[in-house]
Amino acid sequence: MKKTTSGITKPKGFLANGISCGIKKSGKKDLALIYSTTLAKAAGVFTKNQIKAAPLLVTINHLKDHLAQAVIINSGNANCFTKKPGLNDAILTAKLTSKRLRVKAEDVLVASTGIIGKRLPMDKIKKGISVLADGLNRDGNNNAGSAIMTTDKARKSIAVSFKLGNKSVSIGAIAKGAGMIYPHLANYPSATMLCFITTDANISILTLNTALVNAVDKSFNSISVDGCTSTNDTVLILANGQAENKIIKKDTRDFKVFSEALNFVCLELAKKIVKDAEGATKFIQIEINGASTEREAKRAAFSIANSNLFKTACYGNNPNWGRIVAALGSSGVKIVESSLNFSFSPFKKKEIKVSVNLNRGKNRATVYTSDLTPEYVRINAQYS
Amino acid sequence: MKKTTSGITKPKGFLANGISCGIKKSGKKDLALIYSTTLAKAAGVFTKNQIKAAPLLVTINHLKDHLAQAVIINSGNANCFTKKPGLNDAILTAKLTSKRLRVKAEDVLVASTGIIGKRLPMDKIKKGISVLADGLNRDGNNNAGSAIMTTDKARKSIAVSFKLGNKSVSIGAIAKGAGMIYPHLANYPSATMLCFITTDANISILTLNTALVNAVDKSFNSISVDGCTSTNDTVLILANGQAENKIIKKDTRDFKVFSEALNFVCLELAKKIVKDAEGATKFIQIEINGASTEREAKRAAFSIANSNLFKTACYGNNPNWGRIVAALGSSGVKIVESSLNFSFSPFKKKEIKVSVNLNRGKNRATVYTSDLTPEYVRINAQYS
Repeated sequence: MKKTTSGITKPKGFLANGISCGIKKSGKKDLALIYSTTLAKAAGVFTKNQIKAAPLLVTINHLKDHLAQAVIINSGNANCFTKKPGLNDAILTAKLTSKRLRVKAEDVLVASTGIIGKRLPMDKIKKGISVLADGLNRDGNNNAGSAIMTTDKARKSIAVSFKLGNKSVSIGAIAKGAGMIYPHLANYPSATMLCFITTDANISILTLNTALVNAVDKSFNSISVDGCTSTNDTVLILANGQAENKIIKKDTRDFKVFSEALNFVCLELAKKIVKDAEGATKFIQIEINGASTEREAKRAAFSIANSNLFKTACYGNNPNWGRIVAALGSSGVKIVESSLNFSFSPFKKKEIKVSVNLNRGKNRATVYTSDLTPEYVRINAQYS
Repeated sequence: MKKTTSGITKPKGFLANGISCGIKKSGKKDLALIYSTTLAKAAGVFTKNQIKAAPLLVTINHLKDHLAQAVIINSGNANCFTKKPGLNDAILTAKLTSKRLRVKAEDVLVASTGIIGKRLPMDKIKKGISVLADGLNRDGNNNAGSAIMTTDKARKSIAVSFKLGNKSVSIGAIAKGAGMIYPHLANYPSATMLCFITTDANISILTLNTALVNAVDKSFNSISVDGCTSTNDTVLILANGQAENKIIKKDTRDFKVFSEALNFVCLELAKKIVKDAEGATKFIQIEINGASTEREAKRAAFSIANSNLFKTACYGNNPNWGRIVAALGSSGVKIVESSLNFSFSPFKKKEIKVSVNLNRGKNRATVYTSDLTPEYVRINAQYS
């Protein structure tokens, strides 16, 4: 598997672009478009937050046929809790994009990130879509990657290539996320974390969906910045088959190779999100071993990862491990003091690793988080 | 009902004292003693955190006969996760106190707050108990109240008096707590929140316990500073009967009067804890109406109260209400966007009130929290 710095335009047949259409007062890029030259198979996972932003409802609806050809994303406005008018805005965004690209509206997916409760400036978006589509190109990854950012300091993208038979297959992705990061993503079920994955792999729809759910479980569903789950979290994958490999089906060697590559792409981006977390100075890995179930391991790990007291101790280079114990004890997971083992690397390091053994079973999980800093508070005291 | 500024020594027959015995390096007071001149009925509620500090185990054991005559409390060291030696230290603390006071060891209750994972300096405590007992007096409330503080800026105490028949009955209390505050207290099930209540009321044991559980539910179990539940949370009440009122039994008018007074005492102290929360600049009240059950209302309220993003918005005078919506949507409580109503007072005020109506039922709950500030982070980055 070869890793490259390019992203969503690495796989064959994908074009992208990102521009400023005026949603953000700062004048920064705020509208991105991803386009496949041929109709692609598509799958998605969405936030489990019961309040789901309008674009998610539209995208879930458009994914019913498991096909898509374009994704239009805006940043600076989440189009969430905007009731019926907001839903109509999301539908219109897809429609305007579909007309401009001459594809079916049902084949356009929509995503948004930003402030909750405000209507989208549809006039600006309408004009923007035209400019955006005109500029679609094979080098558009960086512009698209920038246009989905909110409080992110760094653009996040990655691509990998690998062989299936004698064909070279690629997977590329862009992601964003810096705060309001505790994704609980599920099939058809807000900072927001967004990730858009492209691949030229030829793969069956069910297999694509399985590979995505598995990859998200150990990546985006294993990170937390602040324990706050967004209304807009979305991960989408489009597979256009232009690599012309023999179709990938479940439980085959090719599935394994594809899954490993997809897992890698998702985990790398998930880690980038944590490393770029709002105000973060540390990258923290929490590993729970000896759990009865993987779910239990994850629950215990997130109880530590979401403890403000643990996170401030990390920030302060202060190995106050009692806070690990207190967090475990209130995790809801059965904890027996006498059989609990744990260790941790020095808190003064930039990367901190905490290992816990519950000594109850054979399952494990790893989650990733950041420290809680005065800068996180400052960023979120001002953000609106 | 008359409210006074005095506290645990207001009820007849209670003496108290607080001294520095050298647990805290700062030289501040760190050892407190409460004593009833006659054996009292006693009840307690303790943290639901599965990791329970040694003093809680000893106190739970000593409460089996529902009787007590003294409470010894240290601050600066939680005596938690200290295994068997720590348990022996807590047992010894009760024993040394009982010998000095010439009461049974089983009639001495123990509580601790401070750093987790360190052994108590038993030599200092042994010497301290002697000095402490010598100084027991009817004006000892303030010294005792100071000696249970950790990161608290202000001492918290209160007392009320009321008539039952022709007898004057009093309830007094001291409390502490500033961080690691999200108490889940239950009968016999870390900052730490501690509250010690005295009363000269003559009351049956079961009635005392019921009154305590009810009062805690709407006060200490309705506050959160940082969503972190301590290993040491404890609320104890001692009722020595010296007011000589006719014994209070359940479902009587006297029970109602006593309960109202106890509810008032607990709620006032719970609010004081939130107002003195580590780094806090705001006092926030969250009211959920229209819930199916009270439990559901509380769950929704705490989802907002424990949202770092909501709390930083409060700190920043930034009415980013999307964060209220996002928190509700991830609360686990069924939320229907179209039937959700909410309102809030201006975020720039010192006291913020958020009212939500889920429009699902007739139950309600109110919880209290503070904002999340850079100062909270600084305090907890350093504390150890």
